[in-house]
Amino acid sequence: MSSRPSTWNVPASKVAKRAHNPIRQIVDKLKIDPNAQKQLISLALGDPTVFGNFNVDDSCNESVIKHLQSFKANGYPPAHGTEQARAAVAEKFNHPDAPLTSRDVILANGCSGALDLAINALCSEGQNMLIPRPGFSLYDNLAVSRFIEPRFYNLVPERSWEADLDHLESLIDENTACILVNNPSNPCGSVYSEQHLRDILALANKHHLPIIADEIYCDLVFAGNTFYPMATLTKEVPILSVGGLAKKYLVPGWRVGWVTVHDRNGIFREVHEGILSLSQLILGPCSVIQCALPDILHNTPQAFHDKTIAQLELNTKVSVEGISKIPGLTAVIPQGAMYMMVGVNVSEFKDISDDVDFTQKLVAEENVLCLPGQCFGYPNFFRIVITPPADRLEEAYSRMKEFCARHHI
Amino acid sequence: MSSRPSTWNVPASKVAKRAHNPIRQIVDKLKIDPNAQKQLISLALGDPTVFGNFNVDDSCNESVIKHLQSFKANGYPPAHGTEQARAAVAEKFNHPDAPLTSRDVILANGCSGALDLAINALCSEGQNMLIPRPGFSLYDNLAVSRFIEPRFYNLVPERSWEADLDHLESLIDENTACILVNNPSNPCGSVYSEQHLRDILALANKHHLPIIADEIYCDLVFAGNTFYPMATLTKEVPILSVGGLAKKYLVPGWRVGWVTVHDRNGIFREVHEGILSLSQLILGPCSVIQCALPDILHNTPQAFHDKTIAQLELNTKVSVEGISKIPGLTAVIPQGAMYMMVGVNVSEFKDISDDVDFTQKLVAEENVLCLPGQCFGYPNFFRIVITPPADRLEEAYSRMKEFCARHHI
Ligand SMILES: Cc1ncc(COP(=O)(O)O)c(C=O)c1O
Ligand SMILES: Cc1ncc(COP(=O)(O)O)c(C=O)c1O
Repeated sequence: MSSRPSTWNVPASKVAKRAHNPIRQIVDKLKIDPNAQKQLISLALGDPTVFGNFNVDDSCNESVIKHLQSFKANGYPPAHGTEQARAAVAEKFNHPDAPLTSRDVILANGCSGALDLAINALCSEGQNMLIPRPGFSLYDNLAVSRFIEPRFYNLVPERSWEADLDHLESLIDENTACILVNNPSNPCGSVYSEQHLRDILALANKHHLPIIADEIYCDLVFAGNTFYPMATLTKEVPILSVGGLAKKYLVPGWRVGWVTVHDRNGIFREVHEGILSLSQLILGPCSVIQCALPDILHNTPQAFHDKTIAQLELNTKVSVEGISKIPGLTAVIPQGAMYMMVGVNVSEFKDISDDVDFTQKLVAEENVLCLPGQCFGYPNFFRIVITPPADRLEEAYSRMKEFCARHHI
Repeated sequence: MSSRPSTWNVPASKVAKRAHNPIRQIVDKLKIDPNAQKQLISLALGDPTVFGNFNVDDSCNESVIKHLQSFKANGYPPAHGTEQARAAVAEKFNHPDAPLTSRDVILANGCSGALDLAINALCSEGQNMLIPRPGFSLYDNLAVSRFIEPRFYNLVPERSWEADLDHLESLIDENTACILVNNPSNPCGSVYSEQHLRDILALANKHHLPIIADEIYCDLVFAGNTFYPMATLTKEVPILSVGGLAKKYLVPGWRVGWVTVHDRNGIFREVHEGILSLSQLILGPCSVIQCALPDILHNTPQAFHDKTIAQLELNTKVSVEGISKIPGLTAVIPQGAMYMMVGVNVSEFKDISDDVDFTQKLVAEENVLCLPGQCFGYPNFFRIVITPPADRLEEAYSRMKEFCARHHI
């Protein structure tokens, strides 16, 4: 007791200090000095609801309201989710080549919560996990906050952001706990071919590495592409697939996600039990929305999804065309999700040093906000979110064009 | 690479293995063999909604529905909660002696999520935290899963479950990170006096130890008792208070909680920043309910709360009377919350070895389910949840009486 400090000194925990989000720093810097003469057009936030052009289907609202008014949907659900909600997820994603029952589903607070459960159940302090670069920053943040080493495997823009398999394999060692694959991808908008997914699975199988498949953008794919759930392409590799309502149902704020455990050979027995134990520490998503989940997953009309895709395809067209007319920029054509990565050829500009400099000057001069590639570990690209209405996108690209013309050599 | 295992072997992470919930083991055992001749009466679950006699106020539902139908409440809120929701919490709990603004509030997934944030931001691996015994098991579970040592300070049933301050002080050492105080208490139903809270604060101040005050049962106090928010009784000790909608608004499934940071002297500057960073890893509660939070906190009629308290007081009376007529059992009279602890004098029974044995035989013979004290670290007591309708409680006590008569010496 004599060894207590003689004055107040309460540091943050080591974990809290590590949990720092690097994007925030970059974005805070970006926002310092926008051009107040022009109205802000933000192409930065992966939230399809902000412009009012992407709304949840009425039928989903109606189901939530029905359950609210029943007064029977307000109690604690089981920590891993109600039987009915888990069964609905299982039925939705069940596949002859990747069978699921309600026992294979764990609900979570958004896909973020599902990723936290999956990473936390699979990886111990001191181990490493393989993460795509460019990639969604939460993978890195979650790993680092848990003292897990993130190792970044390169995606290749010239090959529609396929993984560089040689590079991926070179990162594997005895402390590697898993490979994370994000398909369709944020920030790339890529949708992998069946063959490429099989190639990744072959590597995983060779090294006996389980996979976390972040498939939150499943089904958000454009004409000419097909989404293959990773678990349907392997009989050997155990897979934790994570998903949620956020994107496909246009309700990111509802915070409903899930882990589905694909474990044909009993390799995940302990991991599965571990996820269940971890889920008991916080409990899952809002009970009312859990009760509505069967309606949401089974009774949302297909026309709603078709309309979403049609809008995204139109916006992709507008975006690819818009960028193609701008000297110094190169778009990688998206195949799905809601994002497009654009390369900045800095050597063609007289006073742009890198992607952060580009996005910072763009917001200062044109009040168009994009996230620099460094937010995703990938310099000299920037990410465009393609969910704003087409006329806003066109306005953004026209401002971008003037901006680039001014700064071009 | 040559050092990869030559076969599949995927253990759960160390954290997942530690996250095991001991209550589940005890409860699973209890449920094995209930008496199917009698209808189950569960006095086990701290969920006031299960019997249909405690319903959320219509006005809360109406506000949620209004925001659903606006289509403006579905986007990502800031990770720590919307400004309006945080301002509503700040206004609700603001006090001349413990001022709050929206900047002092962080929303979380239920009070469980708030506890996770608070513990995780304050305590590092290898440190210890002081936890009440008997106490809510999540404190222990969260600490253990983070490699934080839980140290249990005794509560004294003869003094209405006040903390044994000498014992508490004896546990403090240089690795102690904080003291957790739960008032009103689960499982005790105790409500501490101003003086007792001041005594705990004096100890905390002497040893420069911050406090986590779990005040989720604030205001659920019975006639003759007063709830004092801990932060209003100190100018020196920094306090993280945690709360939520679950109990007072009768919506545990909605998963809305919060941390309020009471930091008059800037001692929590780093901890506060740490909580904000941690909140970014998962994001907070459902956006629609966040939007409704100002209505819920400010416009729920007082009559709703009065009715809740009146029902709880009636049920307490029924429970205290019911138990007082049963030889071998001693109730500690609750002062608030929704629980009552009952002592089992095992020496008065011919074939009851302890609280687990008692509750197990009770469910096997009478189909009345109570949690044994061991679920809260406190043998030879059991906990009764007093929220079932009074006639169910009376039936439960009459069965308990027959049971005890049969087993009494
Ligand atoms: C690839 C990816 N995974 C997971 C998430 C998180 O989803 P949620 O909002 O359900 O937590 C996002 C959100 O942008 C994402 O882009
Ligand atoms: C003392 C105490 N703290 C926290 C909680 C968790 O509350 P929530 O349901 O909001 O996570 C409970 C729930 O029973 C509790 O009894």
